Amino acid sequence: MNEPAHKRRIALLGSTGSMGVQSLEVIEQYPDLLQLEVIAANSSADLLIEQARRYKPNIVVVVQEAAYKVVKEALADEDVKVFCGEQSLCDVCEMECVDMVLSCIVGVAGLRPVYPAIECGKLIALANKETLVVAGELMTRKAREMQTFIYPVDSEHSAIFQCLEPGNPVEKILLTASGGPFRKYSPEQIATVTKDQALAHPTWNMGAKITIDSATLMNKGFEVIEAKWLFDVSPDQIQVVVHPQSVIHSMVQFEDGAVKAQLGMPDMRLPIQYAFSYPHRLKSDFERLDFFQLKDLTFERPDADRFRCLALAYEALRQGGNMPCIVNAANEVVNLAFRQDRIGFNDIASVIEQTMQKAVFTRERSIEVYLDTDAEARRIAEELIAK
Amino acid sequence: MNEPAHKRRIALLGSTGSMGVQSLEVIEQYPDLLQLEVIAANSSADLLIEQARRYKPNIVVVVQEAAYKVVKEALADEDVKVFCGEQSLCDVCEMECVDMVLSCIVGVAGLRPVYPAIECGKLIALANKETLVVAGELMTRKAREMQTFIYPVDSEHSAIFQCLEPGNPVEKILLTASGGPFRKYSPEQIATVTKDQALAHPTWNMGAKITIDSATLMNKGFEVIEAKWLFDVSPDQIQVVVHPQSVIHSMVQFEDGAVKAQLGMPDMRLPIQYAFSYPHRLKSDFERLDFFQLKDLTFERPDADRFRCLALAYEALRQGGNMPCIVNAANEVVNLAFRQDRIGFNDIASVIEQTMQKAVFTRERSIEVYLDTDAEARRIAEELIAK
Repeated sequence: MNEPAHKRRIALLGSTGSMGVQSLEVIEQYPDLLQLEVIAANSSADLLIEQARRYKPNIVVVVQEAAYKVVKEALADEDVKVFCGEQSLCDVCEMECVDMVLSCIVGVAGLRPVYPAIECGKLIALANKETLVVAGELMTRKAREMQTFIYPVDSEHSAIFQCLEPGNPVEKILLTASGGPFRKYSPEQIATVTKDQALAHPTWNMGAKITIDSATLMNKGFEVIEAKWLFDVSPDQIQVVVHPQSVIHSMVQFEDGAVKAQLGMPDMRLPIQYAFSYPHRLKSDFERLDFFQLKDLTFERPDADRFRCLALAYEALRQGGNMPCIVNAANEVVNLAFRQDRIGFNDIASVIEQTMQKAVFTRERSIEVYLDTDAEARRIAEELIAK
Repeated sequence: MNEPAHKRRIALLGSTGSMGVQSLEVIEQYPDLLQLEVIAANSSADLLIEQARRYKPNIVVVVQEAAYKVVKEALADEDVKVFCGEQSLCDVCEMECVDMVLSCIVGVAGLRPVYPAIECGKLIALANKETLVVAGELMTRKAREMQTFIYPVDSEHSAIFQCLEPGNPVEKILLTASGGPFRKYSPEQIATVTKDQALAHPTWNMGAKITIDSATLMNKGFEVIEAKWLFDVSPDQIQVVVHPQSVIHSMVQFEDGAVKAQLGMPDMRLPIQYAFSYPHRLKSDFERLDFFQLKDLTFERPDADRFRCLALAYEALRQGGNMPCIVNAANEVVNLAFRQDRIGFNDIASVIEQTMQKAVFTRERSIEVYLDTDAEARRIAEELIAK
């Protein structure tokens, strides 16, 4: 096996979010293999200060200036450099002392620092969805050109990644989905669901935005788009399988007909760790799956009529260009509007669909184009909601 | 990937049984990759003649002399050599023109030809259980010494093999079992089951002997022993998981806690093909698993009190030496006796257990020792039944 010549040196972007916090736990467990070079966050000064003291990175980046000043002063007595601003975020990713950039940034803000990191040939571990949903073609082409790799960190894509075999093409990806809390609701019931109902997600404990995306299946639609770029398959080769128990994290079908699955407890530390250590696996004391305690495992076809967001994501992927970016931006707006009781559940898909029709379509590929598209689509979606 | 320098040239032992027939179907599908050099059978002259005419091997071996004469005469006008006897079976496996020996022989008769094939460094594809149940230590040590490989051909072990990762140790093997037709029977019901009840196996369509072994879970016990030798794990690392739907063909748990499973339709051609093509997968038109048609997948702990044969197999594996051989021989006798209505269902385990106590235990390792043990254990088991 190819053991790394030195410790893998990590820049962790978005260290103060849930994924960032869990990533630090993992890094701390393997001091012989992983070295924390950089932690970066937008504005959570207090937690960032605490993390800097505990995990001893060499560099801390704070995007917001007010928070930067607090962090800088608090860490004056520590042996650590503190930088400010979005450009610093990009700069640290390009530094010689960084081997791998783990992006746990939330939202399109994740696009800017990851692209130059790929241009420098850094390994990427990706917990930021937007990097591939919005800019998958751009990112994966550049990674191929630079002969570097983008490792998935979320549960489903890591499962698929764990099932792949060098040299054996994938016939089909079976992307599992919990189905969300409204899986069994009639169309009439769905039309009247409230944000409180939607925020009661059945399996994983997640943030409010992604919980709503789970309820609409838009989250799964985004994962379809990510899978397309990560694993270089066509949209038709990706089948969403509703599997409410979430024990099977996803599956791959090969050309001989064999299906391979990865199963496990809902613990994000495992995919985080695997992205760090691939192709090796590290010993862990994570809780093991107990098959004798499991509920029956079931599978259903997702209903694209009741959950139109999933169909819209496939449609955006088929159209390509900036269309997934348009869907992502519109979805952020409608997701928030639903959580603010400004629109109903079915308005989520219809506003996204209208935004797809109104926003300017282009096949031009650049971070700037995507950020412009993002702003335009948000504006259009806001206008549609205000009507 | 390492493509073979020439077609893989196959000697198929036991071509007239169910596994042999399916193996020929597979070989016929891939004429660019697989070349049939030898087919061999014990005594099924008519089918062997038909196979020789259709699949055009260069050599045919018939073990029984009477059948040999029939085959020899019938194939006089074909461009094929016909050999007779058990020694010929061994000799053809050693020939230069053979790369891989696929053993579909039934019973301990499978031991003799496979061992010299391993000694010659031939690749082995194994559908014969006894090779590893009876002589696992001998066979796998020799294979390691000769730097050749034994590829599993049955469904469960192929599934495990498909889930392995180079360099990443196995923490646990989760060997799935249908549980047999008496899975839900009370101890009182089990005591009175008949051969007809036992022969109605729930999932796979198999021969009578293995169907009874499935009902007692002795078949799964033998698979535990095979897994120990194929995958170099301790008995404690092998957990039998009753999974009545038989959709998951088996699983592997790694040291990071991740579980990988192979799933599929019940089609033996896939594991046969994989043994031929490993590490490649060949395109097939085998029926694909349809997750939207599946019943719920369930898992249970096997009950070693009601199904004592499974516990006896673990016990034999822990004792080592010729004990698995003793269990295998005694089981053949009691299995037949049960099918002949000479003993009850619970007598199966108790006669095996008594035979384990009475037969001479040795740690000496040779084919001769195992064949002697086999004969002795059969005699003891017969005597116990006759009492």
